[in-house]
Amino acid sequence: MSSVVEAWRAALGADKVDDCAATLDRYARTTQPSATRPCCILFPSTTEEVQAIVRIASEHRTVVYPISRGRNWGYGDACAPANGAAIVDLGRMNRILDVNTELAYTVIEPGVTQGQLNTYLKDNRTGLWMDCTGAGPEASLVGNTLDRGFGHTRYGDHVSTTCGMEIVLADGRVLNTGFGHYPNAKAGRVYSYGIGPSLDGLFCQSNFGIVTKIGLWLSPAPEAFNFFFVRLSNDADIVSFIDRLRPLRMSGVVQSAVHIGNDYRIFSSRGRYPFDMTNGATPLPQEVRKQLRDRYGLGAWNVAGAVTGTKAHVRASRRAVREALRGLGNLRFVSDKQLDFAAQAFGLLSKFGIARGTASFITSAKPVLAAAMGIPAEQPIRGTYWRLRHEPPQDVNDPIEAGAGVMWVSPVLPMRGEDARRVMQIVEPLFAAHGFEPMTTFTMITERSMVAVLNVYFDKRDVTETRQAEACHHELVKALIKEGYIPYRAGLSTMPMIFQDGDVFWDVAAQIKRALDPSDIISRGRYLPPQQ
Amino acid sequence: MSSVVEAWRAALGADKVDDCAATLDRYARTTQPSATRPCCILFPSTTEEVQAIVRIASEHRTVVYPISRGRNWGYGDACAPANGAAIVDLGRMNRILDVNTELAYTVIEPGVTQGQLNTYLKDNRTGLWMDCTGAGPEASLVGNTLDRGFGHTRYGDHVSTTCGMEIVLADGRVLNTGFGHYPNAKAGRVYSYGIGPSLDGLFCQSNFGIVTKIGLWLSPAPEAFNFFFVRLSNDADIVSFIDRLRPLRMSGVVQSAVHIGNDYRIFSSRGRYPFDMTNGATPLPQEVRKQLRDRYGLGAWNVAGAVTGTKAHVRASRRAVREALRGLGNLRFVSDKQLDFAAQAFGLLSKFGIARGTASFITSAKPVLAAAMGIPAEQPIRGTYWRLRHEPPQDVNDPIEAGAGVMWVSPVLPMRGEDARRVMQIVEPLFAAHGFEPMTTFTMITERSMVAVLNVYFDKRDVTETRQAEACHHELVKALIKEGYIPYRAGLSTMPMIFQDGDVFWDVAAQIKRALDPSDIISRGRYLPPQQ
Repeated sequence: MSSVVEAWRAALGADKVDDCAATLDRYARTTQPSATRPCCILFPSTTEEVQAIVRIASEHRTVVYPISRGRNWGYGDACAPANGAAIVDLGRMNRILDVNTELAYTVIEPGVTQGQLNTYLKDNRTGLWMDCTGAGPEASLVGNTLDRGFGHTRYGDHVSTTCGMEIVLADGRVLNTGFGHYPNAKAGRVYSYGIGPSLDGLFCQSNFGIVTKIGLWLSPAPEAFNFFFVRLSNDADIVSFIDRLRPLRMSGVVQSAVHIGNDYRIFSSRGRYPFDMTNGATPLPQEVRKQLRDRYGLGAWNVAGAVTGTKAHVRASRRAVREALRGLGNLRFVSDKQLDFAAQAFGLLSKFGIARGTASFITSAKPVLAAAMGIPAEQPIRGTYWRLRHEPPQDVNDPIEAGAGVMWVSPVLPMRGEDARRVMQIVEPLFAAHGFEPMTTFTMITERSMVAVLNVYFDKRDVTETRQAEACHHELVKALIKEGYIPYRAGLSTMPMIFQDGDVFWDVAAQIKRALDPSDIISRGRYLPPQQ
Repeated sequence: MSSVVEAWRAALGADKVDDCAATLDRYARTTQPSATRPCCILFPSTTEEVQAIVRIASEHRTVVYPISRGRNWGYGDACAPANGAAIVDLGRMNRILDVNTELAYTVIEPGVTQGQLNTYLKDNRTGLWMDCTGAGPEASLVGNTLDRGFGHTRYGDHVSTTCGMEIVLADGRVLNTGFGHYPNAKAGRVYSYGIGPSLDGLFCQSNFGIVTKIGLWLSPAPEAFNFFFVRLSNDADIVSFIDRLRPLRMSGVVQSAVHIGNDYRIFSSRGRYPFDMTNGATPLPQEVRKQLRDRYGLGAWNVAGAVTGTKAHVRASRRAVREALRGLGNLRFVSDKQLDFAAQAFGLLSKFGIARGTASFITSAKPVLAAAMGIPAEQPIRGTYWRLRHEPPQDVNDPIEAGAGVMWVSPVLPMRGEDARRVMQIVEPLFAAHGFEPMTTFTMITERSMVAVLNVYFDKRDVTETRQAEACHHELVKALIKEGYIPYRAGLSTMPMIFQDGDVFWDVAAQIKRALDPSDIISRGRYLPPQQ
């Protein structure tokens, strides 16, 4: 092992190779129940250095595992599937290579963070919005996109807004997808398919290469913008809500992702588990649940979405949403300006004990609202602190530092109320059996589908709870796959459960892997069983 | 060769294998300058039969070339890249396997035609629209989609509305993409990526397998619908038009594909070349061009698009389009109902010699209007008859039967006026030098890109014109690729020109081909140089 590290050191320079114990300790941490330990960390700052890294890895048959910023919270974080990999930390490749305001796109490296791009777009008065996730300002855009993450705006489905990739292959060659491999191509960042087979899909949720550059579409800030919030009182209301909103999503009247969170999910965004109110017992008793719901002014389900367009379009969309939901739940529209004003006014009122529910609603809406405009916030990360028995430091927005355990289970559903009901029927008893609250969001991510994110939050210092979380995750994934609700994404805990023996799909993926990376050096075991 | 045909005959039955000379003659025809001749035609009616076909082909090292309906007009039609292939005509696999009205999708086999699906949707009062191309009611939806064809509605980009494929591989295995390979998967037709690498892109514009089934999204008929037409007087107006409309396309206010055709292109949709007015000379003299423009009431550029949504959205979109184009060209909005009425009224008026330009406009708008609602029409095909010296039969809507020569050159451009201007600068002198009119449409196909379709129409009975057409096509493709305007699609004439030596992209495609089809039996030479 030391010879490959020496070879990398010789090729890259000592400042780009780190195998000291303290560094390895730092990377060998995870929000999952158990971490893996790397052999060293490599810090390339150019595509050429990534090429040198894989060439040396191939020679020495050593596994390399690229990470962008290592903030793959709840899905494995910065950890490789197995011990002994060299982590290729792409954090120093953090250049914003192009921002085209006319055609509204950017070209970025994997180290570019959500906060960095957002600041750039604002500081340079580009008039462009990005889309962001709740993973915080330090999270990578490329890393999230390659795992098919999603956000909140009309460009919420990140993979569908990616255009043109640069990829380093296992033998060190550089592949450009789309039209990017033609010299002087004019449409390389605006038309993603190119000519001939489209290869981009191969490099998402896989281990066929190391992506070192992508084009990403941005949205011109809309003329008008309104959030909408809906509070649904009863568990069963979600069925009708989804069926009524689907036609608007499918006709393009509502173009944003729409998020539907249950009360538990929102509790976690307001603070940690109220151990004091339960005498330390878990899961949350129904009477405490009711108290928290009242305290925060929440429904059984709580919806956040947005409508954009010209002023007249936004008026028309408001009307369409209002008509579709007539008689169902409590619908409020609010513009960004109104919300700023309301936050101040209600903040004042709440000092006098008035309108506490509303004030709380407004306060908690702020990060949701920011996300709907593509502005990354720290706050959503802190939801993962839910089960911590200890007080995490106020300024730490990092679940690993805070000791938070996180596993997401994220099945895809058709956009039908009946399917949401069925998923809840499957998962609620399993959460309860393992002592967890069924924290859930449904996101209308495309015009016909939803992703459910089921959160298993636990305290990593609590060995029993960690073991229960692991079992709960396992049961959830197993039951959902059995019923045909397959995850859209898998963390290291989930990954072994998505493979099926004798499945032509995985066999074909393995054939492609062997063609492109015969020694299985890139991200061995990631979204593909390790090869022989 | 006869042994493989006998093996197919034994496996499939005599009625599914045809190698009689008359049949081979019929398939050995093309709209391109020269055709290839197959060794036999196979007519499977099930996936299992396709599996049997490729297994036998692998054993005998014989090339098979699947076609859906063989209507790939102007791109090679039903012809394989080389002589001696067995054409796998999938026309008998023409089942509509599912139409889901709640989630608005269908599952179809390759033999399903545009006309067939349209009739099904109408007859069963599904309330769903499909998207169609101008290739006519007999053209396949699957075939077009796999070549990344496009239509006119908000689902005009066909590949992006495909969800889940069934594919027969060269060794006879059946691959299901997306979530389709999980038993009982609920979201297989609503969420296309599945989990793990996304393989669908591999099977478009390639030769890695034979697609035997796809899911395809349909649109619920919108509450309201308006076409818009714009007549732009001057050649240069297109620059401003594109730049002004782009923000509406990018913000989702205009969601349909928008087509911009020059006067020449529209002439061809009204009738054949006026040889009588030019004494047989080509290309069209400027004074005749002017006369035709006046006769048909056309601008230098003629735009057709549509806005959909609720009534209020359509009103808002009309206003937004009107404001964006203020002072530029002649903009008219018309609903489907208005047009029906107007066609009758103006038809009457025109009998008395009144409003001839308008009547002509209305008449010619009918098929455009149908296309904007996803209704396939015969008429657009007849545009390919432009250069025929002989009168084609009235009831033949088939360029091959009519003897029409067609080659499309289809570069992709960023959606900027400047790029449209540049493309015209490149191509106009080349068309002129070879004696053709620069027939052109630009289609705003995604939110940031346009496809230009440059039509080289010729009379196949005219040997000189055919030779000129071939040279013209060659020069156009060469010049456009050199300037970075790469085609989105290639016919058999274009295909050899898109490959570049030493290009990692094509090398990787070849590696995947060798992994999946080591004997190169499927569609040898299609979107990939023949393998050794």
